[in-house]
Amino acid sequence: VQPVLGIGDDAALVQIAAGKQLVVAADTLVEGRHFPRDADPAQIASRAIRVNLSDMAAMGAEPLHYTLCLTLPDSDQDWLESFAAALRQDSELFKCSLIGGDTTRGELCISLQMLGVVETGAALKRSAASIGEAVWVTGNLGDAAAFIDSKFTGNADLANRFWRPQPRIDFALAAHSLIGACIDISDGLVADLGHICSASGVAATLQTDRLPLSQQLIEFAPDSARQLALTGGDDYELCFTSSAESETQLRAIATEQNIQLTRIGSISSGSGVNCLDENGSVLNFERSGYSHF
Amino acid sequence: VQPVLGIGDDAALVQIAAGKQLVVAADTLVEGRHFPRDADPAQIASRAIRVNLSDMAAMGAEPLHYTLCLTLPDSDQDWLESFAAALRQDSELFKCSLIGGDTTRGELCISLQMLGVVETGAALKRSAASIGEAVWVTGNLGDAAAFIDSKFTGNADLANRFWRPQPRIDFALAAHSLIGACIDISDGLVADLGHICSASGVAATLQTDRLPLSQQLIEFAPDSARQLALTGGDDYELCFTSSAESETQLRAIATEQNIQLTRIGSISSGSGVNCLDENGSVLNFERSGYSHF
Repeated sequence: VQPVLGIGDDAALVQIAAGKQLVVAADTLVEGRHFPRDADPAQIASRAIRVNLSDMAAMGAEPLHYTLCLTLPDSDQDWLESFAAALRQDSELFKCSLIGGDTTRGELCISLQMLGVVETGAALKRSAASIGEAVWVTGNLGDAAAFIDSKFTGNADLANRFWRPQPRIDFALAAHSLIGACIDISDGLVADLGHICSASGVAATLQTDRLPLSQQLIEFAPDSARQLALTGGDDYELCFTSSAESETQLRAIATEQNIQLTRIGSISSGSGVNCLDENGSVLNFERSGYSHF
Repeated sequence: VQPVLGIGDDAALVQIAAGKQLVVAADTLVEGRHFPRDADPAQIASRAIRVNLSDMAAMGAEPLHYTLCLTLPDSDQDWLESFAAALRQDSELFKCSLIGGDTTRGELCISLQMLGVVETGAALKRSAASIGEAVWVTGNLGDAAAFIDSKFTGNADLANRFWRPQPRIDFALAAHSLIGACIDISDGLVADLGHICSASGVAATLQTDRLPLSQQLIEFAPDSARQLALTGGDDYELCFTSSAESETQLRAIATEQNIQLTRIGSISSGSGVNCLDENGSVLNFERSGYSHF
């Protein structure tokens, strides 16, 4: 999609089609805080754009354009070319384009603002969960957290899950009419499902023996896999609610798109997220998710 | 203006009225690079939002919403409250609202993305200058540059010009049908008018004895006032082109809005910006404007 006016003027100009609403998200990655120093610029670029694309997926939106505010210590041509090439590749893959921004000198810091569109009234919100709905997640949970816990030394598969999360845009677009509330898992499943619960005024119960864990996670972190899946965050999978009648259709979309989909719990009246083990006993955690400070 | 959905979900949701186009700008301020360390958080906030509002003015757009990506060293409540209060004040003054963003820990860095709207086809572009048009500027030039040159120790009036630039939104909205090309002066008059020239495929001649210089600038920097006005940048006044027939109407709008407006040159065929002194001789400069690296 091309903007009416792109990079090179005081601002970019974008046409929003009739019947569509604009969706706006912005996320920052800081070196040493969100990723290790001296990380590969291509990986940094990929993660920066994909975490923002994941917000589009969580809203059921189609990505359109983005601006990039890039602060970096020096004007290293190799670094910039590698960063830009990866950004371009993901832009093509997810059909969005860079329309503006700013480049400044300072500590390495990437702020990306993503613009997308959704049919008017069709946006997926955190506040739309209903009592009796099932709770679902896409993909596997805990992989990215295991990579972080290993101080970014874990194996290549886990690394890939951290650096190149898969924004579930096509799934959200195809399934949006079947979905109640939706969020992407950035802070951790318990924390993010908790956001759905508080926004919707409901409670959720998780059957933690159902959590989708990858083989690589179970091998890499056999003792903490479930804990990582519950509280680790950074997988950028979708967590959403849906009525029991929608299960067949949801599974059909997932099969068609070759996406793993797992029913992990249910919505009830009350507040907060209850985690049950295989015996139906309540699990307790020291931490429920990522703290921004 | 309220968004359909503001802060608190994965992204914000905005309705763009029929017949309007979206205008998108993003700018970053980094401590120690764009402003001194330990600066007043209220001043930082004011400058951060106003430089982005100025991009809206330069496009002839009406500001609507913005996202803020704030990176700061620690979670200092007093600092944050002062920053937020100033941001809120300017948001009200310029009728726009914060709809999302991110707060992270790191070196102090503020990336703000502004969204505005313009009637379809009415955006002011750098590429629309025509041969024979006059070149105009709003306000005075050089004040902010004098404050920077004084290492941020200049007097209060100059400080105010740096920290609280006046986005000329109302002027641009009222005068847009009289304006050819338009840009806001952030890098310096010669550099920014140069951007208009290269985008429009024209040349400009400046009569430097006509440059609007404030009394405070002449007193503070008697020897370099003109040079600062030509190459200093950071005033965020508008530089635009307009046909001779529009002069009366332009002046009427300026008078009504109590804005100073000065005709400083003209557009001709060719390329580049020629600066003439009071005798019609060509001036030369060592530097033509701000370099981002």
